[in-house]
Amino acid sequence: MPKVTDVLKRLVIGRARRSEELTETLLPKRIALPIFASDPLSSVAYATQEILLVLTLGGLAYLHFTPWIAAAVVALMAVVVLSYRQVVQAYPSGGGSYEVVSTNIGPRAGLVVAASLLVDYVMTVAVSVASGVDNIISALPSLAAHRVLMAVGFVVLLTAMNLRGVRESGRLFAAPTYLFIGGVLIMVGTGLLRYLLGDAPVAESAAYGVTPKEGNTQLAGLALTMLVLRAFSSGCTALTGVEAVSNGVPAFRRPKARNAATTLAVMGALAVVMFAGVTVLALVADVHVAQDPCRLTGLAGDCHGHSQRTVIAQLAAAVFGGHDSVGFYYIQAATALVLVLAANTAFNGFPLLCSILAQNSYLPRQLHKRGDRLAFSNGILALALVTCLLLWGYDANVTSLIHLYILGVFTSFTLSQTGMVRHWNRELRATTEPARRRRHHVSRAVNATGAVVTGLVLVIVLATKFTEGAWLAVLVAALLWQLMRSIRRHYDRFAAELAVADPETERRLPSRVLAIVLVSTVRKPTLRALAYARSFHPAELEALTVAVDAASLERLERQWEEFEIDVPLKVLQSPYREITRPVVEYVRSVRRAGPRDVLAVFIPEYVVGHWWENLLHNQTALWLKSRLLFTPGVMVVSVPWQLTSSARADRPAARAPGASRRGEP
Amino acid sequence: MPKVTDVLKRLVIGRARRSEELTETLLPKRIALPIFASDPLSSVAYATQEILLVLTLGGLAYLHFTPWIAAAVVALMAVVVLSYRQVVQAYPSGGGSYEVVSTNIGPRAGLVVAASLLVDYVMTVAVSVASGVDNIISALPSLAAHRVLMAVGFVVLLTAMNLRGVRESGRLFAAPTYLFIGGVLIMVGTGLLRYLLGDAPVAESAAYGVTPKEGNTQLAGLALTMLVLRAFSSGCTALTGVEAVSNGVPAFRRPKARNAATTLAVMGALAVVMFAGVTVLALVADVHVAQDPCRLTGLAGDCHGHSQRTVIAQLAAAVFGGHDSVGFYYIQAATALVLVLAANTAFNGFPLLCSILAQNSYLPRQLHKRGDRLAFSNGILALALVTCLLLWGYDANVTSLIHLYILGVFTSFTLSQTGMVRHWNRELRATTEPARRRRHHVSRAVNATGAVVTGLVLVIVLATKFTEGAWLAVLVAALLWQLMRSIRRHYDRFAAELAVADPETERRLPSRVLAIVLVSTVRKPTLRALAYARSFHPAELEALTVAVDAASLERLERQWEEFEIDVPLKVLQSPYREITRPVVEYVRSVRRAGPRDVLAVFIPEYVVGHWWENLLHNQTALWLKSRLLFTPGVMVVSVPWQLTSSARADRPAARAPGASRRGEP
Repeated sequence: MPKVTDVLKRLVIGRARRSEELTETLLPKRIALPIFASDPLSSVAYATQEILLVLTLGGLAYLHFTPWIAAAVVALMAVVVLSYRQVVQAYPSGGGSYEVVSTNIGPRAGLVVAASLLVDYVMTVAVSVASGVDNIISALPSLAAHRVLMAVGFVVLLTAMNLRGVRESGRLFAAPTYLFIGGVLIMVGTGLLRYLLGDAPVAESAAYGVTPKEGNTQLAGLALTMLVLRAFSSGCTALTGVEAVSNGVPAFRRPKARNAATTLAVMGALAVVMFAGVTVLALVADVHVAQDPCRLTGLAGDCHGHSQRTVIAQLAAAVFGGHDSVGFYYIQAATALVLVLAANTAFNGFPLLCSILAQNSYLPRQLHKRGDRLAFSNGILALALVTCLLLWGYDANVTSLIHLYILGVFTSFTLSQTGMVRHWNRELRATTEPARRRRHHVSRAVNATGAVVTGLVLVIVLATKFTEGAWLAVLVAALLWQLMRSIRRHYDRFAAELAVADPETERRLPSRVLAIVLVSTVRKPTLRALAYARSFHPAELEALTVAVDAASLERLERQWEEFEIDVPLKVLQSPYREITRPVVEYVRSVRRAGPRDVLAVFIPEYVVGHWWENLLHNQTALWLKSRLLFTPGVMVVSVPWQLTSSARADRPAARAPGASRRGEP
Repeated sequence: MPKVTDVLKRLVIGRARRSEELTETLLPKRIALPIFASDPLSSVAYATQEILLVLTLGGLAYLHFTPWIAAAVVALMAVVVLSYRQVVQAYPSGGGSYEVVSTNIGPRAGLVVAASLLVDYVMTVAVSVASGVDNIISALPSLAAHRVLMAVGFVVLLTAMNLRGVRESGRLFAAPTYLFIGGVLIMVGTGLLRYLLGDAPVAESAAYGVTPKEGNTQLAGLALTMLVLRAFSSGCTALTGVEAVSNGVPAFRRPKARNAATTLAVMGALAVVMFAGVTVLALVADVHVAQDPCRLTGLAGDCHGHSQRTVIAQLAAAVFGGHDSVGFYYIQAATALVLVLAANTAFNGFPLLCSILAQNSYLPRQLHKRGDRLAFSNGILALALVTCLLLWGYDANVTSLIHLYILGVFTSFTLSQTGMVRHWNRELRATTEPARRRRHHVSRAVNATGAVVTGLVLVIVLATKFTEGAWLAVLVAALLWQLMRSIRRHYDRFAAELAVADPETERRLPSRVLAIVLVSTVRKPTLRALAYARSFHPAELEALTVAVDAASLERLERQWEEFEIDVPLKVLQSPYREITRPVVEYVRSVRRAGPRDVLAVFIPEYVVGHWWENLLHNQTALWLKSRLLFTPGVMVVSVPWQLTSSARADRPAARAPGASRRGEP
């Protein structure tokens, strides 16, 4: 009968898949696009809003900077997408920025990229899910009290889907992403058309004023620059996730690199159009939002109870005719769905990167192991756990979470573009063919531009976000970097110590095999252990017991005579009633007497069917075994005796599911 | 360098003691009296009070029943002490009631006594500590808010003292008990002398009236009988702890039985004098108490804030001249101390009874193991844990706890006296000598009286206390009874299965020894395992590997050739990337092919110095070992490789304290 947990696992995750099925899970472009692009595309749902939120800290007057900031973000996105097309083609093995930087700059810099990306994958899940929940609450305000619970619920759902394996989740995710793209394009198109026809949509918040934050009125000079740069930093969230495609190249159908590059281009074009469209529409419809709803003026009712709708919700309501129109619900549903699914980008990227890092010995080996459904299950579970903690800790608040977000993205952008410049330099040195050199010069120029621009943005992000929460992301990434280096050192030391330098030394047979059988009383397992030990024909065989009290010893000696056991019985006195220490000390003394001998310590053990049955027996044998393993030149031989289970004596003990083992009492 | 935890343990518990020191811990009478008698003596501090509290539920008018109830309790105590003197002399081995009942009635009835006593030991600690804290609060009312914390603190203190071993705790406990006895006798003497001289002491509560509980006015017939019987039941708490002496006989100096009987007699006389004296004095001084202080009339101030002093505190203040007299503080300090130390009776009795039950296979073997200081540490810790939970659950309230208390005492009284009657019947059948027969007849009469009287009290206690909390004590004792029977069944089945019926069968050598060495890659531990396996000269030797991915297999096969290993390599395909299942299935198939052979499975393992290093390696080998132990006819041979610890490579790995082990990655 299968275990309940097994049945449950099958229901949630599906049947196990054979290793050969791995190639079947490769993705065609039309499915790879929604999987890898749902993140940058869906960030349309919050990037514009974050720009507006920062600018209105100074008051509505500063909203006129919005188009310029949006234009900068669009330009930046074009540069990044162009740069990454080159990465994908030059390094199609899926290491993405990590591989580029490790190869061209060095492993330490590569590890910086890896740490940054790991942190950012977590943030992608947290921000996307939190924003998705925001959009659900915009449509159904009564759910506002369950924000964190909903967010965690979505993460759990994503985890289960991803444990089922990548292709099935891909198919599942294709539809909503396309529905979202279509919906936003129609909304932007309709809105702008109405504007051109003189019937401009008007947001519900158009009439609200905003009280600037203290000290933010009449900004000029440095303060104004900082405000604008902070708004720009927040808008750069639109660029997150471009990285995911370069890490996901191996999941594409062949030709992998070309398919990935095409997907990147389509994604970039869509993202630019949607982001620019939504931003323009938000300005046209006069959307007014504030981080603290109590800074909004002209509200009806109490500001504390006022739940602001997201920018995308306000636009949908304004364009399609209110909060009960079909269009509004369609946009909100599609937005929420695509945002939650955008988190899936990270659920694809994070375990893949972990597995590559594990393969390079920077993370525990377990992360390189594929689960029943060929997904990297351990990485998926780690991501889910950390994200849930983060959502819970930050109350699933998008604006708070976003401060931790884009730092890692731009660290990896900057380093990988720098790495690509070095890559082209090397290529240029290697070739003299004029046509190739020309192409390489162009490529290098693209990547150099990318490096300078993203480096600049990195400085801006650091300057404007560090004190607002980004310090935590920096700290975690730094710790992660140090941890990965330590792990690598451990594996390296381990491999060096175990590598076979001289096979003859290692292969040499011990001069003699001595056998010791541990006994406490004469029972069936004891006699079996003695018989097995004898069957090895050791040079010397003796039984060893520890005398804790006189009565037990006397009984043992009586049994020894009664059963006519012709093996010498060695008795160790233990005045302090210890078992382990006298045995280990005796074993060491035997070893000292014959350093070239090997000692086999036979331990009669019984195995019981239920874990609670172990509570009824001392755990001496288990403890003893683990201590003996630390004594050089000793083999520990467990001679098990399978006890029939008390509840189901007819059932073969070997199949007992919760089975565990202990030594003699 | 010793571990911090070791140092701490030494500080709290003291240095380890050799088993031979056991006889040194025997107790002279003058120390045994305070140890075993502090419980019945200290109950003077609450028994009178509980009688008054119950009677005043009906109003002050019913207080005139007090002398009669006290007289009944005194008579009962005389009967019980006389009966137990016979138990102690007839059964000096320390099983007390448990042994008497098991021997004379049967093991099931004996187990009823054991379960009742275990519950009652817990209650002794809880009630005594709670009452001790009450008396401290009577002297220092500002501590009232920390009742539970103080109670738990005292339990922890007692635990630490008892872990140090019985004799040292005895010495520590002698002084306060004698100070308490002296103090109470002086207080009673002074008070009664003042009364005789016409200057009767007057309690602070003498002027208070008490409003009877609804429905309790003008009681008559059955209701009145019930009230009086309930008061009597509560007064019977004075008898708890008599049992302890009979369980503690082995801790007495020789002649054990006579010394114990003398101690019992002295204890009984002291208890009777003190209890009667305090009760008379309480009536003389007109002490008025109520379970609910809001039923007291004539209070100055708010009744909810009114903290009633204990009866003993009120008496001390009345006799010695107020709440700031030296006499008052002396009595309160001695009372509190003796009550907390009375809990020590249980800390002596509970582990001793547990150890006897463990020896009889009714409780886990661990409870029969003596700790470093020769105390039964596990029993002490179990008692401390349960008591702390109880004190926390009942807010350390004496009156609530007392309802759970005396049921078990009287169950064991009744059964043990019945058992003693049977004992004398048997003795009478065995002897014809007239003088002996006369003595036996007298003894039987004493025990028969004891059985009838305590049986009657048991019925009274059950009838008056069951719904007030005693049901929980009954339930717990019943569950404990069932649990102990199940544990015994497990041990019996276990012993029967392992007992050697026919030594020749068990001793027979297997026809051949086959050896399998598990390998995943060729490293030093692999070669060592192969060499060790070969040194046993098995009939057949092969290496076994599980092919999870093609690359690893290819590397292994390449290494196999490179190192010219002349052992055949068997490869198991594992399309679902499992390790354990294919190995176990292969081992079973080998076993099926030669059922009379024995199979030695060699597992190269490495051991690391730090527990966290295990996280970096898959736990496949460990899992595999525990599964193989469930396969009949298989020996599991661990061939360890001690890795130098990363932090302290110069330190012998064998000494690593938190050391643990794992298999190959």
